[in-house]
Amino acid sequence: MAMIKVHGHPFSTATALVLCCLEEKQLQYELVLVDLSSGAQKKPQYLALNPFGVVPTIQDGDLTLFESRAIIKYLAKKYQAQGTDLLGNTLSEQALVDQWCEVEAQSFFPPAWNILVQTAKVPMQGGITDEAIVKKDMEKLEKLLDIYEERLSKCKYLAGDFFSLADLQHLPCAEYLVKSGGKGDLFFSRKHVNAWWEDISSRPTWKKAAEKLP
Amino acid sequence: MAMIKVHGHPFSTATALVLCCLEEKQLQYELVLVDLSSGAQKKPQYLALNPFGVVPTIQDGDLTLFESRAIIKYLAKKYQAQGTDLLGNTLSEQALVDQWCEVEAQSFFPPAWNILVQTAKVPMQGGITDEAIVKKDMEKLEKLLDIYEERLSKCKYLAGDFFSLADLQHLPCAEYLVKSGGKGDLFFSRKHVNAWWEDISSRPTWKKAAEKLP
Repeated sequence: MAMIKVHGHPFSTATALVLCCLEEKQLQYELVLVDLSSGAQKKPQYLALNPFGVVPTIQDGDLTLFESRAIIKYLAKKYQAQGTDLLGNTLSEQALVDQWCEVEAQSFFPPAWNILVQTAKVPMQGGITDEAIVKKDMEKLEKLLDIYEERLSKCKYLAGDFFSLADLQHLPCAEYLVKSGGKGDLFFSRKHVNAWWEDISSRPTWKKAAEKLP
Repeated sequence: MAMIKVHGHPFSTATALVLCCLEEKQLQYELVLVDLSSGAQKKPQYLALNPFGVVPTIQDGDLTLFESRAIIKYLAKKYQAQGTDLLGNTLSEQALVDQWCEVEAQSFFPPAWNILVQTAKVPMQGGITDEAIVKKDMEKLEKLLDIYEERLSKCKYLAGDFFSLADLQHLPCAEYLVKSGGKGDLFFSRKHVNAWWEDISSRPTWKKAAEKLP
């Protein structure tokens, strides 16, 4: 079997998500570097793989796939019997995994990403952080994590008492908020959220996937 | 088998999405009205079902599930042998369905929803449409639909030559843009996008699900 190719970049949070999933599934892969600093992701060769011009994209045999959340779902399904099961055993467990994956995508990621952009990308490009955006999005995250606190008081992980794609999806942006963004109190100030964060962020697979994140 | 309960409202785009999926799967269901005008979605009885206080939420036997995209995925999986197959047959087809579902959730929905809010909800509440937001989000949709045009020149639907969850997910907000929002040219001006829109929006299941949308 040919090795899975990951076209990505170690500084990309979405690439880190896919790499962590590959580690959890004990899969071998080749990381094909897309040189973001020279804009390689917007050149015809890469756009032929992914018309959106963003990383990552994977190639697994004949299949070319982009959108990191779709990639990890595919890997978790295709290799369900191998490594960590990330999907849940029953249809109901799987539905709850999907539900909390949607919560991440629709409610956690947008404000977390805005804060990352405003506090990291904008200053790196010589701009000035818009503090009003940061404040508004921090308020959204505070409310959201109150809901997580309630949920995580009832089960160890978001979808139940098993680590799943739903937890995994939070790692890249949460890592930024805690480690570089100075927003760790969002997690530390809530007992059950803190225990969850300590647990998921200390997984060796994530440490390996995230080691080159800026 | 007890009937599936849908806690929702016929004016809600996310409820319409779930209803359309139920129709495609030829499932019987009971619509339990959540009276949005009196704020019933924020009261303890509903928050016990869905801590986010938004519609819809379904109950199917012992399972309570929210997030409309997770709900339709669950219905499509559980009842795969019944009604329209919305998932794809092979693992690769299913991965492409998930990929285009993510494109809808991350790239189509956010600007489309902002336009809906600015041109419908804000004026309804006595506010003034922020035309700068509408302009910026229209530009995002123009670029996105250029990518769709290219994709739909190669296959009839987004994930391939079969109607799937990925197409279905576009219906509620696209319906608003075309029918009430005056943004139909986004679709009509692109040959393949127009043919796709004509096809998916004329499905009887969607007409039934959408008949009460404002």
